[in-house]
Amino acid sequence: MLITLEGIDGAGKSTLVAGLAEALREHDPAVLREPGGVALAERLRALVKDPALEVSPRAEALVYAAARAQLVAQVLRPLLDAGRVVLLDRFVDSSLAYQGAGRGLGVGAVRDLNAFATGGLVPDRTLLLRIDPAAGLARVGGRGEEQDRIEREHEAFWIACANAYDELAAAEPARWAIIDALLPPERVLEEALAQVAPLLVP
Amino acid sequence: MLITLEGIDGAGKSTLVAGLAEALREHDPAVLREPGGVALAERLRALVKDPALEVSPRAEALVYAAARAQLVAQVLRPLLDAGRVVLLDRFVDSSLAYQGAGRGLGVGAVRDLNAFATGGLVPDRTLLLRIDPAAGLARVGGRGEEQDRIEREHEAFWIACANAYDELAAAEPARWAIIDALLPPERVLEEALAQVAPLLVP
Repeated sequence: MLITLEGIDGAGKSTLVAGLAEALREHDPAVLREPGGVALAERLRALVKDPALEVSPRAEALVYAAARAQLVAQVLRPLLDAGRVVLLDRFVDSSLAYQGAGRGLGVGAVRDLNAFATGGLVPDRTLLLRIDPAAGLARVGGRGEEQDRIEREHEAFWIACANAYDELAAAEPARWAIIDALLPPERVLEEALAQVAPLLVP
Repeated sequence: MLITLEGIDGAGKSTLVAGLAEALREHDPAVLREPGGVALAERLRALVKDPALEVSPRAEALVYAAARAQLVAQVLRPLLDAGRVVLLDRFVDSSLAYQGAGRGLGVGAVRDLNAFATGGLVPDRTLLLRIDPAAGLARVGGRGEEQDRIEREHEAFWIACANAYDELAAAEPARWAIIDALLPPERVLEEALAQVAPLLVP
């Protein structure tokens, strides 16, 4: 059972993942994030987030896909084959939104690339934490951390990503559930659980 | 004018690149190698060669493609657009042979991936330094260096790579020139120059 969380930066995915992991602890969920979760992916994450490094849009899409391929082969596929519940913070849809739409590479081309990377793995349920780009950016800015290379993108980038998420969710309504990220955190968790709980064997 | 050099490990590409660069110095060739040539690609090269790191076949193909995408965007495309002669030690065909055939991912899938990475860039001439896999391995072993993750592959891997090179060359005879890597180095260089010189404006 693969449950993925998606949304632009500042939507509150990290908070929701932690809440879901706690609420679903009787199912012993594995909690993973992208890019990361295995040594190669963590090293690739550091590369692609480095503000000093020049990374072309195509190279960026390929680095994320490489990190994803390693996570699938080394951890995700074995967990799913063993029947585990997996909560995954970002997956293929993030690349469709960020690199396909945001960077303008095209959702179709990035989808093909990721089908190669994952062997065609598709989540059972995807939660979209939906937030207005300006509100998301304000939240990220309010964290007081230094911004990485991707967070520095201009507003048009974030609007393209947010619109792409809306289109992806509209195209596959059986997989996606949209949650208003501006609700109080406890209400966000409640809605997420309502979407996920029916899928889980008690 | 993009001239690429291909062949399995131990074929003598590095020696030939150096010889060609010297012999063609009146054309002021740019000399590049893959994976490498730009900061991101050098960092990716270190990752994928690290014997301690677990790298799945798909992740490996994607890391090489990412390094290649960055090299094309940042250096190779600008050099070619400026009319420069470029000598490139390994390019897309290495991935077709090593990851497509050697790792069994399929030449077609790896070709699609690399068309995305390079924007469809194809060399003007490709020199295949052809060597029997056993002879190539003996040369690499004779260097006395510690072997990296890919050099440690078993013989069947190298035979698959060598066969794939033969098939790629046979499928595109106008682009490929095959040179017997067991000839003396000065004869290898002579044959390479005979293939390349007619392409260059004096």
